[in-house]
This record gives sequence, structure tokens and C-alpha cells, in this order.
Amino acid sequence: MSKITVGIVGAGRIGKLHAENILSYFPNVRLKSIADVYMDKSEEWAKSAGIENTYTDYRKIIDDPEIDAVLIFSSTNTHAEIAIAAAKAHKDIFCEKPIDPNPERIREVLKAVDEAGVKFQIGFNRRFDHNFRAVRDMVQAGKIGDPHIIKVTSRDPNPPSIDYVKVSGGLFMDMMIHDFDMVRYLSGSEVTEVFATGAVLVDPEIGKAGDIDTAIVSLKFANGAIGEIDNSRRAAYGYDQRVEVFGSKGCITVSNDTDSSAVLSTSEAVTSEKPKFFFLERYKDAYISELKEFFEAIEKNTQPPVVGIDGLKPVLIALAAKKSLEEGRPVKVEE
Amino acid sequence: MSKITVGIVGAGRIGKLHAENILSYFPNVRLKSIADVYMDKSEEWAKSAGIENTYTDYRKIIDDPEIDAVLIFSSTNTHAEIAIAAAKAHKDIFCEKPIDPNPERIREVLKAVDEAGVKFQIGFNRRFDHNFRAVRDMVQAGKIGDPHIIKVTSRDPNPPSIDYVKVSGGLFMDMMIHDFDMVRYLSGSEVTEVFATGAVLVDPEIGKAGDIDTAIVSLKFANGAIGEIDNSRRAAYGYDQRVEVFGSKGCITVSNDTDSSAVLSTSEAVTSEKPKFFFLERYKDAYISELKEFFEAIEKNTQPPVVGIDGLKPVLIALAAKKSLEEGRPVKVEE
Amino acid sequence: MSKITVGIVGAGRIGKLHAENILSYFPNVRLKSIADVYMDKSEEWAKSAGIENTYTDYRKIIDDPEIDAVLIFSSTNTHAEIAIAAAKAHKDIFCEKPIDPNPERIREVLKAVDEAGVKFQIGFNRRFDHNFRAVRDMVQAGKIGDPHIIKVTSRDPNPPSIDYVKVSGGLFMDMMIHDFDMVRYLSGSEVTEVFATGAVLVDPEIGKAGDIDTAIVSLKFANGAIGEIDNSRRAAYGYDQRVEVFGSKGCITVSNDTDSSAVLSTSEAVTSEKPKFFFLERYKDAYISELKEFFEAIEKNTQPPVVGIDGLKPVLIALAAKKSLEEGRPVKVEE
Amino acid sequence: MSKITVGIVGAGRIGKLHAENILSYFPNVRLKSIADVYMDKSEEWAKSAGIENTYTDYRKIIDDPEIDAVLIFSSTNTHAEIAIAAAKAHKDIFCEKPIDPNPERIREVLKAVDEAGVKFQIGFNRRFDHNFRAVRDMVQAGKIGDPHIIKVTSRDPNPPSIDYVKVSGGLFMDMMIHDFDMVRYLSGSEVTEVFATGAVLVDPEIGKAGDIDTAIVSLKFANGAIGEIDNSRRAAYGYDQRVEVFGSKGCITVSNDTDSSAVLSTSEAVTSEKPKFFFLERYKDAYISELKEFFEAIEKNTQPPVVGIDGLKPVLIALAAKKSLEEGRPVKVEE
Repeated sequence: MSKITVGIVGAGRIGKLHAENILSYFPNVRLKSIADVYMDKSEEWAKSAGIENTYTDYRKIIDDPEIDAVLIFSSTNTHAEIAIAAAKAHKDIFCEKPIDPNPERIREVLKAVDEAGVKFQIGFNRRFDHNFRAVRDMVQAGKIGDPHIIKVTSRDPNPPSIDYVKVSGGLFMDMMIHDFDMVRYLSGSEVTEVFATGAVLVDPEIGKAGDIDTAIVSLKFANGAIGEIDNSRRAAYGYDQRVEVFGSKGCITVSNDTDSSAVLSTSEAVTSEKPKFFFLERYKDAYISELKEFFEAIEKNTQPPVVGIDGLKPVLIALAAKKSLEEGRPVKVEE
Repeated sequence: MSKITVGIVGAGRIGKLHAENILSYFPNVRLKSIADVYMDKSEEWAKSAGIENTYTDYRKIIDDPEIDAVLIFSSTNTHAEIAIAAAKAHKDIFCEKPIDPNPERIREVLKAVDEAGVKFQIGFNRRFDHNFRAVRDMVQAGKIGDPHIIKVTSRDPNPPSIDYVKVSGGLFMDMMIHDFDMVRYLSGSEVTEVFATGAVLVDPEIGKAGDIDTAIVSLKFANGAIGEIDNSRRAAYGYDQRVEVFGSKGCITVSNDTDSSAVLSTSEAVTSEKPKFFFLERYKDAYISELKEFFEAIEKNTQPPVVGIDGLKPVLIALAAKKSLEEGRPVKVEE
Repeated sequence: MSKITVGIVGAGRIGKLHAENILSYFPNVRLKSIADVYMDKSEEWAKSAGIENTYTDYRKIIDDPEIDAVLIFSSTNTHAEIAIAAAKAHKDIFCEKPIDPNPERIREVLKAVDEAGVKFQIGFNRRFDHNFRAVRDMVQAGKIGDPHIIKVTSRDPNPPSIDYVKVSGGLFMDMMIHDFDMVRYLSGSEVTEVFATGAVLVDPEIGKAGDIDTAIVSLKFANGAIGEIDNSRRAAYGYDQRVEVFGSKGCITVSNDTDSSAVLSTSEAVTSEKPKFFFLERYKDAYISELKEFFEAIEKNTQPPVVGIDGLKPVLIALAAKKSLEEGRPVKVEE
Repeated sequence: MSKITVGIVGAGRIGKLHAENILSYFPNVRLKSIADVYMDKSEEWAKSAGIENTYTDYRKIIDDPEIDAVLIFSSTNTHAEIAIAAAKAHKDIFCEKPIDPNPERIREVLKAVDEAGVKFQIGFNRRFDHNFRAVRDMVQAGKIGDPHIIKVTSRDPNPPSIDYVKVSGGLFMDMMIHDFDMVRYLSGSEVTEVFATGAVLVDPEIGKAGDIDTAIVSLKFANGAIGEIDNSRRAAYGYDQRVEVFGSKGCITVSNDTDSSAVLSTSEAVTSEKPKFFFLERYKDAYISELKEFFEAIEKNTQPPVVGIDGLKPVLIALAAKKSLEEGRPVKVEE
């Protein structure tokens, strides 16, 4: 089989991560080109990594007939434009979440993708985490019967910079969007209604920037289940990523990953390791797995594991959560 | 020191449990009398247990000048009347939760108690559980800094009979009331607002009886923290009783108690024990501890560990939760 | 059914513990008398506990025709004499371990017991621990198939006084004897050969007293299994009591008991509770259970759960271990 | 920095694993050649992996002046010859364990390595496991004070073929040799004396082949500590790899790695995942890490993390254990 030739748009932290993963783990994938508006900052890295072409203009990649697939890791506000251009050029697309904060704009992307008939996968990397996938597989296998209660705990070790917070789209769109995807993934059902409770407890500057840093969102699902997500921008002990699915026949829980299972018992206490530090450490393998399944979908011409609708729904839920917080009432997702 | 002489009103399951605990563990307490409207059903048990007097009319206990303290384990609708009578007779009082479903009636009880200057302890036994007390002590010791998120999972192994459900006052008043107490206990703060999400997922008969069997309630606290409680009337794996308190400096979690720590690894799976079956097993020691602290408060003339206001507040929260579910909106507790 | 009337010989720490357990938990048992050579030290305690008679001479108990059973908690060197006297007086006997350090003397006791046809139970309390019993029950139920490897970890929080060490009979007879009993209990087989490795690592004074404070003993069993016990006189983190049984179909492990399951996660570490402090805390319920089964054996006229041979075998193993250490070679138990 | 050019001898399972790891994870290493006496079986694999040269004669690699380092994964009986040839050709050497079953032959290799002044690393991959390294680091950091007791549990999911057993050198040389290395690594001290207990419990055919399949070895260390290793050729639940180090200030334990942390609670049981299946799964990352540190030692011209003496000592311990089993007595390693 001939190699898949790909180009990456966006040479920031996450773009580089994926580039390096491709170079290390996918001998059948040729990473031909990378584009970034600030390519000069990453030129040296790209050279030493052995990427053939570097551009400031992503269109060079779109226009390259050798390129089979485009991987979009640029800033969120550029996702839709690049994805539409890639679709029109009949490239398969891997797009970092969210596609866009605006559902109308997302629908335009999905329309372009549909019309072009290209593959389109969203970067909800947590679906590929070993723990959450095990939970999902057990739920799908009926191990807990019908889901009744879905719970997600998702807390970051530290808040982003205030500058980032200001342009982030807010906690629901920037952080909890992963968890909105997760509850869809775990429950196998759609969220129909949300009620959001938020607070500024971590840093008053986040409040001044018009955002919250701590939140609980109650959920109703189409299949009758109910659920709940909690988020904090700062967990002193690190990156806290746990889920629980409770159903008619049982319950599944997971714990955090750690660097080792060593337990030290002394006269003071019994101590074990803190969770793996942050998303790069915790989801190291998940980042590889999501690409692996994307490339397999291309090779085998099958449906990618996270498709367009999976990019739209969490945005709609995030918008409903935002409205719920603003208006102090439950909000239907399709409202 | 002379013995404390007590009488028990209510010879049902929980009344008998406490009677037997007093006889076994409190050599300085004399259980003189027990009263129950259906005393004939328990006459033989009382005799063999060595309780001196049995009555059908609780007033025989109230009128006995030797009785120092009255312990009320009769049906909820009789709590207030008996408590007021006991207070007027200057007896110290231990009263099973809830005092009454009606806050006005509770206030009458608290007024009578205040005027009489007697001890008054509510039977929120879970406060005396080794796990939850350890969490509360750590929170009070500042181990997690300021509380940000308080979470309670509370699931029964099986729903009560439909007949019971019909007169129970509903899931919030009958079951989640323990958890409303628990979040006050753990957070050291008052619940100010609730939003309830409920569903009938366990048994449609419960729905026909006008109740729900699965619920999530979002909470706001006076100190700024937020929280969440989930309840189910049936957890296939048994009695699930867990809490989590997350704060500025860390997080505390507890797991369920089991009969042993044995882990069996075979070619099939790694298996461990299910949670202790239900409240009698799980809170066995807590039932003893709550009486111990009640009797100590009498002996040392100190404040009991769970006082009148602790009986009123959870009822107000339960009523707010009920209204929230009915009206589909967040409800302030003091509304 | 009429009450069982008992007398206790030995009012030291363990004698008092059992006396109080009988008074609290066994309404059908009458603790009539207690004897101790230093009874004056415990006179006040016995009065306040409500024990009818106190003696300095244990024979007063033996000679009392009302006494059904004698419980022996006096110093080890008096066990055999009292047990033989009690047997001859046709009293049922509960005897603290070891019966005697001398196998010949033990055989005399067992002979007297046999001839009198009285019940005779040895105080190997750990057999009644919830964790170890769960392991034994699983082994007996065939959950792990044929036992291949039996492992016991048994470490005290602190060594006894040097004065005690000098008269203790040595680590194998004083401390590991519990573990020799445990491996018989768990494996359902007899130890045939031991090899002992010992060291003085905790306190050189223990070495000067002619004893060791750290030891590993390798074991061979009659059923072909092999095993291993490790002991230390001082575990900084407290009382470490774990076992593991590995067999053809799987493995069972247990962990230590703790006061609560609370886990505190902070920026420093994830910490949980240390093991319950020492034998009085860890085996609190086991001490009650062993008496419960002794009294049941009397009431139902059945075999007690720990019988005479169970008192002899661990002493033989301890003597073999001692010889192995002295001679630097494996020693057969029946050598 | 220029690339390190390497050749691999041995294209069996473990040779291929390392070859693929080099190609994926070490962009600064050029895998130029691979040699195997049965190269025809692996020719296609080598081509598709992109290895430049394939040989049946390892000397082609030794004689290639471009080759900086030789990695030896051929059958054990060829290790010494190839290592000596490589040393004489001034190649750095990575050699799978054991160097040779014969200590004299090992000493010849070490002499050749010393004379040539080349790097020489032994493939004790478990030293690079995240769990065991964490234990070792804590021991070295003094977290448990002076080591008193070192314990290793090491059980395979299934025995090798009887044909393999016959040429394996026996359980001590083939399987427990990893654990002899591990106790040296964890304790930071040398084993001075062993006593071996062995049994045939898994498969009588193993006994007929002159070997054992279940063993416990007691250990004495130069620093005064004592220890114990248990091995079984078949653990029904999978690959069981645990260690424990107990010392004057505390204890460190580790548990097995699993594919996920998911815990499923149902009416039947609480179940979690079995250990990762076998060494390829469990030590996946450790195989990469050991090469990483080997290449770093070359690049930085530092001492490799596992050196010649580390290849000799475990063989001496294994021979002592074998003699102990045969003669039924403790055997000194330097005997």
C-alpha cells in the first residue's frame, strides 16, 4: 500500500506533538508539509524533525495535489476556513476541537465535508484514552444495563493565562466541551437539557475577565438518563480526570493514571503518586491512537471514529450551558 | 456518677437496634421503658432483652419522673408531638430524622426545646461514620483549604415498598435528606440554592406513586462553594455511600466499606467484595457513636453534636428541591 | 436456655479485654469470677465491671461447681497447670496461645483434656479476623484451586521491652507462632520443614538478649505447597498484617485495615491512613468472634474452631525454626 | 551530533522488538545491519522495516567500520563469542541477559570489554520499569531508611514449552535471574547467601525434564538485610510482577500494571482488570528506556546503567540457588 501523504496546519504545541507522533509511529504516513502563520518560530524544529516543506500560508498545503489529508491544529478561529478549503480540495481532514464556537459556521463546514465526501475527524482525544474507552466498551457491552447516571470530574492543574481566558470562549466552550463530548461518548445518547452552576473560586481575575473557574452542570439525556459534570481550573494535586457510569445492572468507575503504582508507608502516612501532570502526559497514548484510527479510516475507507456531528453537538451543549448560567434556568440544547 | 435513665418510643427495627445497643454498650445507661402503639408485636423481644416496662402509650414514659431522656424512633408523623411533650416534661431528647416534614412544626419543636432548656439531638447517624467524620475533620483542619466542590453519592441497594414510597414524603424528604445533612456537615456552610433533576428509571410504580427514584441535585453554598448529590433507589452492587470534598489546596475522597479486603485474581478477573449491604451493616458503629455522644452531652452538660437547627435545615433544603423539580427552576432554600 | 457460667484466670490486659467483651456482648454468659495472682491491682476494675468474685488463687474458680468454663489468660508458664486442673474438674477451657513452650507439657494438657472430654479452644484470634477468614473460606471453596505458595507478612509497630524479650521464648515462639498457625489455617495442610533466616536490625539490645528481631522462614507443606513468613519487630508505619495464597487457579491477597478509607490529595502527595495501630485495634472484632464460637461450641456441644492439635503444631514449628536458625540448615518439624 | 550507527545480532522476537523500537524512537540512531543465522525467515520483515543490510554471519557487522555499537539478541550460547568479538573490534555492546551460564566465560567477556574500554550494557530491562525504578529511587533517597527485608514476587502467565525448559538452564538461570538482578538493584547490596525451596506443582513434565516450576529462595545481603523471591511458571491471572522493600523507616510496595483502571461493580462482584499479559506488554516502555540510556551513555561517554558486574552476579546467585536446591542447604554465593 502506498503511503498517506499529509500536511499539518498549525505548528504550536499541539501541532508539533502530532507531527512528532506521525514521524515516530506511522511509517506508512509521509508528513510532507507544515504551515503556520508564525512559521519562523518553528522553522528550526521542522528542519531537525525532517519535515520537507514549511509554509506560512496553509493554502500551499491545500493546493498540493500530493497531499491526501490535512490536519488542522491552528487557532480555533481559523479551523472552519481551513477545513472548508481542504474539503473543497478533496483532502481528508483531521480537525482539532472545537470546529468553531458558532454552530452555523460548524454546519457550513459539515456541509462542505459532506459535499466533498471526504473523511472528517474531530480531535476529541479523550475518547481514545485507555480508561474511558474501557468504560465505554463495558457500557456498550451492556455490563451495567441501561445507563441511569453519568458523572464526569475534570479538573486542570492550573488555569491558563488571563490573556488566554479572555479569548477562550469561556470555561464551557474551552474546557468542559471535552466533557460534553465524553458524556455523549459514554452514554451513547444525546444531551437534551442542561443546568449550569458556576463560581469564581480559583482566581478573581478570571471573574473580572467575565468567565468562571469552577462549575457543575446537570444534564438530561434523550434516553432518560441524567448526569453531571464538574470542572475546576485548578486542582492542587494535578490533572483530575475521572468518570463514572451507573446503570440498572451496576456501575463503572475509573481512577487517575499515575507515573508508578509505588506506595510508601512511613510513620507519617501512606502515600502514593499524584495523577499524571496534565493532558500531554495523561493523554500521550490517546493522541497517537486518535491519529492511528484516522489513518486507518483513510486506508480502509471507513468512517472515522469521531465524525462531524460529534463536533457540532458539544458546541450546542456548551452554548446551552452558557445561556443556563446567564439566565439562571435550565436550558434545552435544541432551544 | 449515677446512671442515665432512658425511655424509648418506637419499637420498630431502628428502635430495637438502639435499644440493643444501649443494653450492650452503655453500662451507665438504664433503659427503663419502651413504648410502641403495637407493643404486643414486640413484647417478647422486650422481655428477653430485659427492658423493665413496656407501654403502648408513650405518655407513660413522659410522665415517669425517673426518666432522664426520651429517645424517639416512632413514625415520623409522631415525632413532633412526642418531642414537644418530652421537652415540656424536661426530658433530654434524641429524635430520629426528620423531626417533621413541615418546617413550621419543626420550629414549634425547637421552640419547646429551647424554652425547656433540654438537650435535643437529631439522629443523623452518618455524621458518626468513620469515613465521613475523617473527611469532615480534614476539611475543618484546613487540609484542602477553602471548599470549592462538595459531592455526595448515595444509592440504596433496593427501593422500599410502594406502600412506603406513597407515605415517605418523597425521595428528597425520605432519602436525600441524609445527604442534605451531609453536605452541611462536610462543608461547614449552609445550602442557599438547589436545582433538582429527577427521573423514574428503577421502577415505574414509583413514578405512578408520584415519586422519582433517581435524582441529581445541584447546590450552592453560602461560602461560595458549589455541590452536587446523586441518589438512586437501586444500586445493583449494594449500598453506595461516598463523598468527595474538593478545595483550594486539595481533595478528599472515600470509598465504600466492605466485609473484607480480600482480592481474588483468577483467569476470569480480579474481584473484590461489594459494599456492606445496607445501612444497618454500614452504619453499625455510627449508630452506637451517635448515642455515645448524646449520653456524653447529658453527662457533661455540653451541646449535643447534632442540634435543632440541624433538624430544620435539611427539611428546608428537601422542600426546595421538591419545588425545584416541580417547577423546573433553581429554588432558593429561604424562598 | 440457661446461661453459661464462666471464670477467668488472668486479669492482665488481655484478660480484661475478654472480660469486658463477655460483659458487653454475651448476655447469655455469666462472668462469675476472675482470679489473678496480683488481683489487688485489678480489684477496682473488677468491681466497677460488676464481676461477682475476685480471687488471687485460680483454684477457687476450678473448685466452684457453678463454673462451666474456665478462660485462661494468665502468664504462659501457668497455662498448662491451670488447663490440666480445669480439665480434671470437667470445665470447658479457652486457653491463650501458646499452651506451653514445651511440646511434652502440651501433650500432657491435651491428654487431660481428652480424658475429661471437655471443650478446649486455643486463642489464635487471627483466625477470626474478617480478612484472613475470607481468604481461608475462598481457599476452602476451591477459588484458587490447589495452594502452591502461602505467604504471610507480620510486622509489629514496636518491639516489646527487653525484659519481655528475655523471657518471651524468642521471636519464633512469641511472635511468629501466630503466623505458623495462620499458614496451617490458610493452607489446610501441615508444615513439614522450615528454613529460618534471622537478623538483628531493629535493636542491638535484642541481639544481646539472644534473640533476633527480623526473620524470614521458608516452609514446605505436606500437600506439596511451599511458603514463606516474614516478621519484623518494628514497622515504622504500624501493624502490618497481610497474607497471600497463590494456587493453580488464582491468588488471594488482603490489605491492612485502616480507621477510614479517606484519601487526601494535595500538591505534596496522595495520602491515606496507616494500618490500625496494633493487635487490640486490628483484632478487636476477632477477639469477640473467637469467644462467640467458643460459647456456641459449648451451647451446641460441637467441636470448637481451634482445638488441641492447633495448639501443639505451631509450637513444634517454632522449635524447628529455632533449631534451623541455630544450625543453619533446613529442619523437619517432626525431626 | 552525528548519528550512532548500530547493528543487531539476532532477529528473533526480542531482536525484532528492539529493532522496531530503534526505528521508531531513536532518530539519532541508524540501524544499519541485522544478522541472524536464520535470516531468511526474517528477510521480508527487515526489508519492510527499512534495515539496510541483512546477514547470516554476525561477523559482517563486527567487521563493518561504520558500526559503532552491536546489540546482541541471539541465543544465549552465542552471547559470549559475539560480545568478545565486538569488544575486540572496539564496538560498544548491548547484550541480552544472561551473558552466559558459565561464570568463567562471563569473566572472559568482561575482561575483553575492559581491555577494549568499550561500553557494555546488560539487558536487565526490568530495572527500567516505571514501578521498580520508583521503588529503587525511593530506597536510594532514604525514604525507608536502611533496607531490612526485600521481597520479589515474579510469576509468569504460562510455562514455556518443555523443549525450551530442557535447554533453559533451569528456573533459577532462566527466570529467577531477573529477580536476582532486581534484589541487587533494589537493595543496593550484594546477595551473600541463598536457600532454595522448589517444587513441581504446575506441570509434571517440567519435573521429568529435571526442572522445577515453583520456587521460593531466601536471601542474605552484605548490608545485613534479608530477602525472599517467589517464582511460579503459571499464574492463572497473568504476569505477576511485584516487589516490596521494607526498612527502618517504612515500606514501599507496588502493584501490577493493568490496561485500564476501570472497576465494574455489579450484583455479582466488584471486578477490575487482570495484570498486563506478559513481558512484552508489561515492559514495553522499559525496553525503550534501556536502549535510550544505552545510547545516551555512548553519546555522553558515561557509564551505562547496567554494567558487566551486573551480568556476572545474578549468574553466580542462580548457580548458588541451584546448588542449594540440589544439596538441601544454604549456599554462599562466593562458595
